[in-house]
Amino acid sequence: METHSTLLERRTNLLGPSVPTFYEDPVHIVRGKGVWLWDNSGRKYLDCYNNVPHVGHCHPKVVEAIYNQSSTLNTHTRYLHEGILDYVDHLTSKFSEKFTSAIIACSGSEANDVALRMAQVISGNKGIICTDNTYHGNTSLVSQIGSRTVPIGGYSNIISQIPSPIGTKTRYDKIDENENEKLANIVQEKIDEFQESGVGLACLIICPFFANEGFPTLRKGFLEPIISKVRAAGGLVIADEVQPGFGRVGNNWWGHQSIGFEPDIVTLGKPMGNGYPVAAIVSSNENIGIFRKRFRYFNTFGGNPVAMAAAQSTLKVIEEENLVQHAYTVGQRALHKLNNLVAKYDCLGVARGSGLFFGAEVCDGEGNPDAHMTKLIVNSMREKGVLINSLGRHKSILKIRPPLPIENQEIDFLINTLDEVLDSLARSHN
Amino acid sequence: METHSTLLERRTNLLGPSVPTFYEDPVHIVRGKGVWLWDNSGRKYLDCYNNVPHVGHCHPKVVEAIYNQSSTLNTHTRYLHEGILDYVDHLTSKFSEKFTSAIIACSGSEANDVALRMAQVISGNKGIICTDNTYHGNTSLVSQIGSRTVPIGGYSNIISQIPSPIGTKTRYDKIDENENEKLANIVQEKIDEFQESGVGLACLIICPFFANEGFPTLRKGFLEPIISKVRAAGGLVIADEVQPGFGRVGNNWWGHQSIGFEPDIVTLGKPMGNGYPVAAIVSSNENIGIFRKRFRYFNTFGGNPVAMAAAQSTLKVIEEENLVQHAYTVGQRALHKLNNLVAKYDCLGVARGSGLFFGAEVCDGEGNPDAHMTKLIVNSMREKGVLINSLGRHKSILKIRPPLPIENQEIDFLINTLDEVLDSLARSHN
Repeated sequence: METHSTLLERRTNLLGPSVPTFYEDPVHIVRGKGVWLWDNSGRKYLDCYNNVPHVGHCHPKVVEAIYNQSSTLNTHTRYLHEGILDYVDHLTSKFSEKFTSAIIACSGSEANDVALRMAQVISGNKGIICTDNTYHGNTSLVSQIGSRTVPIGGYSNIISQIPSPIGTKTRYDKIDENENEKLANIVQEKIDEFQESGVGLACLIICPFFANEGFPTLRKGFLEPIISKVRAAGGLVIADEVQPGFGRVGNNWWGHQSIGFEPDIVTLGKPMGNGYPVAAIVSSNENIGIFRKRFRYFNTFGGNPVAMAAAQSTLKVIEEENLVQHAYTVGQRALHKLNNLVAKYDCLGVARGSGLFFGAEVCDGEGNPDAHMTKLIVNSMREKGVLINSLGRHKSILKIRPPLPIENQEIDFLINTLDEVLDSLARSHN
Repeated sequence: METHSTLLERRTNLLGPSVPTFYEDPVHIVRGKGVWLWDNSGRKYLDCYNNVPHVGHCHPKVVEAIYNQSSTLNTHTRYLHEGILDYVDHLTSKFSEKFTSAIIACSGSEANDVALRMAQVISGNKGIICTDNTYHGNTSLVSQIGSRTVPIGGYSNIISQIPSPIGTKTRYDKIDENENEKLANIVQEKIDEFQESGVGLACLIICPFFANEGFPTLRKGFLEPIISKVRAAGGLVIADEVQPGFGRVGNNWWGHQSIGFEPDIVTLGKPMGNGYPVAAIVSSNENIGIFRKRFRYFNTFGGNPVAMAAAQSTLKVIEEENLVQHAYTVGQRALHKLNNLVAKYDCLGVARGSGLFFGAEVCDGEGNPDAHMTKLIVNSMREKGVLINSLGRHKSILKIRPPLPIENQEIDFLINTLDEVLDSLARSHN
């Protein structure tokens, strides 16, 4: 068995420098089952981070579907095959009526890359509005709307960022009941700038849960004035459901249903095949057709029978195990328990989230974001066998996002461990 | 069992209009094994098209590797795992010494998207030179260097196309022994234009087999003067090995070895996981490091343990079954037999290709490209149970590219069927 330092050295040599791992003491994971992971020494970790193994690590039905189809046939979509048709039929039944058709790709990045160009072709314009603390993927185009790194040659004039929403549950910022109206005015300014420069508005792209922004608590209908401005200018709305989709946020299949709006294009990724690389762009037949005609888009691996078997079995497990409702019920209880910790510890600001994607602000003595303390908490949790992480503009919001089949007793283990960690950090701090 | 027309209607509704299938009478494939495919009526087809199932459809060792790893663990690369390290170690051992490191992605498109930006970051310039009849993928950036569709907003000033090489075996064009020197001069003109406009030269990207260009016959060293110009201007050379890689062209693992040059960055895709969506960018540790540092690139599905198990088992099968040598031996024999048909039929111009990627020009009475006749041949072959296709600027070159484990008796079936088809078409033509 190789040591961590050997593995880290090999990573630097084989994958290049600057390839980070999670946690100060990285975890060498060798096995997974349900919501649990095991490291090379046989130690068990509760996985409260990974949303890709959506229905649980190594779900036997998904594994079986992948095995059966891999043993039978795997080829591209220039031949006829029921797999992709049955899946898209099933998938679109989870959306409102206008979402009838889909393009299947391999990754959320590919899906967003297609969605942006689809909006550009349909609108006849190039301008893209996004938030200022987001991530939608890693292609040349899509990485430009992330805020992590400056694109080659600087930011493009076709991309305009608006502030991320603050919401109604935070100790970090002043809460403003008219936040959405103010954001709508900023959107209008960006639209005007696009129109003045000749770029024009193609679309607004958002994660409807604003996950990377720190999943602010937003009331249903919050986005209405913003979306009105986009639509009035002929722009399309892209909902990037890579993170909130497939029931993650509870009670609804999609984040856009939870916050209450109807996008024009929806993109899907990570959880779609429970780990098999598969992603989708869902829209109306007309929109999909306009894009396909313009770009003659073909994706070699996209929609292959194994990808579709993985995605279909994942979808069926979500239904059979009632996981959309489960995410709500278990998530509500978890958030309630997390709120108890918020009441108990000064270093926690406000708890927020929905379904099985939740967390809490970590604050310093003045209630400001405390990234250092957040890191301590995340690493201490890892030491105690619970894997979580952090996100948000200040990297100061705990990110808790377990596979959906997590049960109450496992939530209790998570919360109790967090209680212990916070207690211990509070003592060492005083 | 659904009829073809039902399936085609469902495709239009669910996948959008303008989603073509191969062949006038599309094939509804339900099962694959080795070099054979079966349709829904139980009819058997010799697969002489698919390069993705590189070691054969549903190879039991690859299926087993996917099954075992899918049952054990599938997660991302922010944890330590030997799978990605062992694979990159094994993969880079097939390259010359400077290729020590890799980034793992999901598709050839993602790989080329990364490679282009890597060249841009390293060179500090943006200009990309490619050929005028090529395809390197479907992201927003990469699709712009394809020649299939005009990019949104027209062709970018960072992309410059040079003519595709003609080579030394063709009836279509005049053969020019100094073709490479002339192409080198054109490359120099493009470089000068890039420098004058302030874009500068980032890279030349080529498929070293010029597959989509119609795989012209080029002597070893053909590219030397072209590459000299690129290097003298500080540009990098990207070899897109998605099609020729992994032994496809026989005797060598990579197309760039066959034509005799050393690229700076190599991209891999389609055959890498025998159908599992996986791709790679291979280069020096330094080059990979510069890109990673600049873009903090992370790919959720890229390099996951199942992808690496699929890729590793594919690589091992290539070795165990000696497929690189096999591709050469069987391919040489196939080309010899194809040459006999060229001698026999006026409608075939010249046979060309290497290893298990070969074909022949289809000509009209004057020796010009005959796309119509090519279509007739491809569709008649399908009717007789052999799947091939066409490519090249005029869609007039037969594209024959079976899984590598094809045996001589199957090649004989291919050639005999082609003989029958050509004979029948010649009779109906006269």
